[in-house]
Amino acid sequence: MARKLSGTIIIATHNAGKLREMRELLAPFGIEATSAGERGLPVPDETGHMFSENAAIKAHAAAQATGLPALSDDSGLCVAALDCAPGLFSADWAVNKDFAPAMEKVERELQKRGATAPEQRRAYFVSALVVAWPDGHEEIFEGRVHGAVIWPPRGEKGFGYDPMFVPDGSARSFGEMSAQEKHGIDWLAAPDNALSHRARAFVALARACLEPR
Amino acid sequence: MARKLSGTIIIATHNAGKLREMRELLAPFGIEATSAGERGLPVPDETGHMFSENAAIKAHAAAQATGLPALSDDSGLCVAALDCAPGLFSADWAVNKDFAPAMEKVERELQKRGATAPEQRRAYFVSALVVAWPDGHEEIFEGRVHGAVIWPPRGEKGFGYDPMFVPDGSARSFGEMSAQEKHGIDWLAAPDNALSHRARAFVALARACLEPR
Repeated sequence: MARKLSGTIIIATHNAGKLREMRELLAPFGIEATSAGERGLPVPDETGHMFSENAAIKAHAAAQATGLPALSDDSGLCVAALDCAPGLFSADWAVNKDFAPAMEKVERELQKRGATAPEQRRAYFVSALVVAWPDGHEEIFEGRVHGAVIWPPRGEKGFGYDPMFVPDGSARSFGEMSAQEKHGIDWLAAPDNALSHRARAFVALARACLEPR
Repeated sequence: MARKLSGTIIIATHNAGKLREMRELLAPFGIEATSAGERGLPVPDETGHMFSENAAIKAHAAAQATGLPALSDDSGLCVAALDCAPGLFSADWAVNKDFAPAMEKVERELQKRGATAPEQRRAYFVSALVVAWPDGHEEIFEGRVHGAVIWPPRGEKGFGYDPMFVPDGSARSFGEMSAQEKHGIDWLAAPDNALSHRARAFVALARACLEPR
């Protein structure tokens, strides 16, 4: 039985795009949320070898620093032909938070391997969510969305690698979708609508730890 | 047109198991090979985000240090449900070069995710081979073998994660196979026989850079 979340929490991120999405996903629940960035908390070293490990590092650091439950997301783009790169290093491939060179590097590596056919361009986004409490308890949830990487990138919405990722079943990239489309219409009542990796991880989190207000 | 390899080369590894396999795979070609370990070369920092990047770091370091062409392998086990972990960190999960705790960690992470059904235990081994010359030229080759991870591990042969990996089409783990079975009978003349990730990468290397003596 997972521990329930209520009252005020810390969202353990310094990433504005991620914070915006997580606030929207938390909106249906009576949760007050400030972020690690807004609270001026230091950015912990992400030394884990899995998304869930890095999410746990961030959530526990924020919970210890504030005495409040903390929610973190560690996420990335896994390109099959690149053995899950950029993966854990998805943010590191950006230059001064600009993901245009990061997307160019993904495409360059695919070209090196002659990966031009659609079946050679399979990829997925993954989100690991960790809720950590000040007493050290934690709950872990994961979500994935499979699709393909495209070139050139399309759309100005979202953040990170969104413009170069087209989820299966869609003709549009995440960069061409509103946050509501990525999260899914009424995703809480209709969890099958949850499209993005983060929304899918939130479905699991909501079932275990949250109650609609 | 790839550059050909001949004469004396350095095998840029400090891993005895890998060195043994690479010497066997090089045996059909008139190549003399010493290793970075035998030459007392330092172990370079593997700071890359892809297997091919880490292989390139090792090969260029050895080529620069010795003035000879250098061949390196960077390889690892990618478990799908773990988003390619241990992946780049495959060797790091060992404790004092003992892979028993590394295999236990893989199994523990799969158990955490309830990954007990065969389709949740898909994995592959990948090998990236890089040949680097002292003038900075490089050639890159990759090989993969898909299969599943098993528990408990089986067999005492091979090295690393071999005992917990069963390649597709086989009932036995890599730990239960001789090097000759992993490499494939007469793999040079019958490249479809190449079974292991490393043997498959060697097929590509041999076609491009080597000539049977």
